[in-house]
Amino acid sequence: MDRPEIGDVFGEMIRDAYAVRTGIGPRPLAGGRVPRPVIEIIERDDGLINGAPADHYLTEPDEWQPHDHRALRMCRGHVLDVGVGAGRTAIELQRRGMAVTGLDTSAGAIEVARKRGLRDTVLTTVDGYARAPARYDTFLLLGNNLGLLEGPERAPVFLAALAAVANPGARIIAHGTDPYGTTDPVHTAYHRRNRERGRLGGQLRLRLRYRLLATEWFDYLVCSPGELAALLDGTRWRLESIDDVDRPYYLAVLKLTD
Amino acid sequence: MDRPEIGDVFGEMIRDAYAVRTGIGPRPLAGGRVPRPVIEIIERDDGLINGAPADHYLTEPDEWQPHDHRALRMCRGHVLDVGVGAGRTAIELQRRGMAVTGLDTSAGAIEVARKRGLRDTVLTTVDGYARAPARYDTFLLLGNNLGLLEGPERAPVFLAALAAVANPGARIIAHGTDPYGTTDPVHTAYHRRNRERGRLGGQLRLRLRYRLLATEWFDYLVCSPGELAALLDGTRWRLESIDDVDRPYYLAVLKLTD
Repeated sequence: MDRPEIGDVFGEMIRDAYAVRTGIGPRPLAGGRVPRPVIEIIERDDGLINGAPADHYLTEPDEWQPHDHRALRMCRGHVLDVGVGAGRTAIELQRRGMAVTGLDTSAGAIEVARKRGLRDTVLTTVDGYARAPARYDTFLLLGNNLGLLEGPERAPVFLAALAAVANPGARIIAHGTDPYGTTDPVHTAYHRRNRERGRLGGQLRLRLRYRLLATEWFDYLVCSPGELAALLDGTRWRLESIDDVDRPYYLAVLKLTD
Repeated sequence: MDRPEIGDVFGEMIRDAYAVRTGIGPRPLAGGRVPRPVIEIIERDDGLINGAPADHYLTEPDEWQPHDHRALRMCRGHVLDVGVGAGRTAIELQRRGMAVTGLDTSAGAIEVARKRGLRDTVLTTVDGYARAPARYDTFLLLGNNLGLLEGPERAPVFLAALAAVANPGARIIAHGTDPYGTTDPVHTAYHRRNRERGRLGGQLRLRLRYRLLATEWFDYLVCSPGELAALLDGTRWRLESIDDVDRPYYLAVLKLTD
């Protein structure tokens, strides 16, 4: 088989999902005629593959999970939406009159977010943005984006980059999932295998694929609140609260210390 | 990355799709709690990957495409449903009082078809069934199962196996898709590449993946009615009619000659 090409998987997928949802622009068709639902495909390094409809990246507030609404109510001041994607939450904050910047590494995602009306966007990594003059009061990591901490090596670097553009007293509001409630042997075996390799159980090694494109392999962290607390040791962030009403999902609030 | 394990991909997927649709039995959960839609993942040998919700394998007649209903109305006598899957069409024929056997190579699919009430099933290939004593008047290849002809090499062998268990005057009713209406460069480039390799344009080389499992790579034929007619040369089957009301999909009726 030919190897898939490395490219902006998320961006291509979001462009198509946007075209399917709005009916505007070219989109993949089955048999050249029937629009196909856009599916996000995620490979894990143990050979697991999963597909999930991509439409949730484009949902309106009335289609959201309750914790998304609770997260938005906690936003204060100038907000940086980290991994803004198609702008789902940032656009809603903007609608409410808040100052919000959307950051993403996907050019296609930023393009769709702007088309949907998001005004302030940056196409870069958090590391690339750490020297920006802007300062933020809230960092929003929704849609499981606590995963961007990647693991014990990356987390302090990532958190320092956010601290570099934080106002005093800034907060991170991050959506995570506790992976250890499952009894599915596919996942429990994977957690064990990770630990044997010196990784956190839910330190996933993933790549995304869409059509002819793939990302490089990357780490994405799914961790318990306890593991998160341990990762904060030695950083400028402390765990202020965990809202786990919608278990296994949770909202973690981290506060910048002086 | 670990290589996926070779196994009954279709069967595992159908078992899960059945569990999700009925709410009975274990099924994959996101975060150990939320049922995830079951997605069929298909890789093509040029690196293309596509996902599609698997639920259509389990639909009731009121959810079908019109050509499925037209196909069922053409069934006569003893029917062999080739690639019966979860029994979607065979169960409906049985409900109408017709004699129908469901054949599939997937143990998991046969298990689900039987749970759903299909009485007469065989777990084998068409080649394995060619020496069976049973005789059929109609062979049903729905859900794009004209693809089982694979290509110019396999088609005559496959068609001879059906002829071996056919009553005089038997018909094949097969659902196909004309692949050449598309202008999507991902597909037109693939058709060209296939032709350069001496294959039919729509002679797809595929494998299915589901969770930790993969199939071996196999050919699956998506051809025009003209290409189909050419494939019948030298076989005992002649093209009786093409119903392409639902273009690019079509129903081909092949009749056994004396």
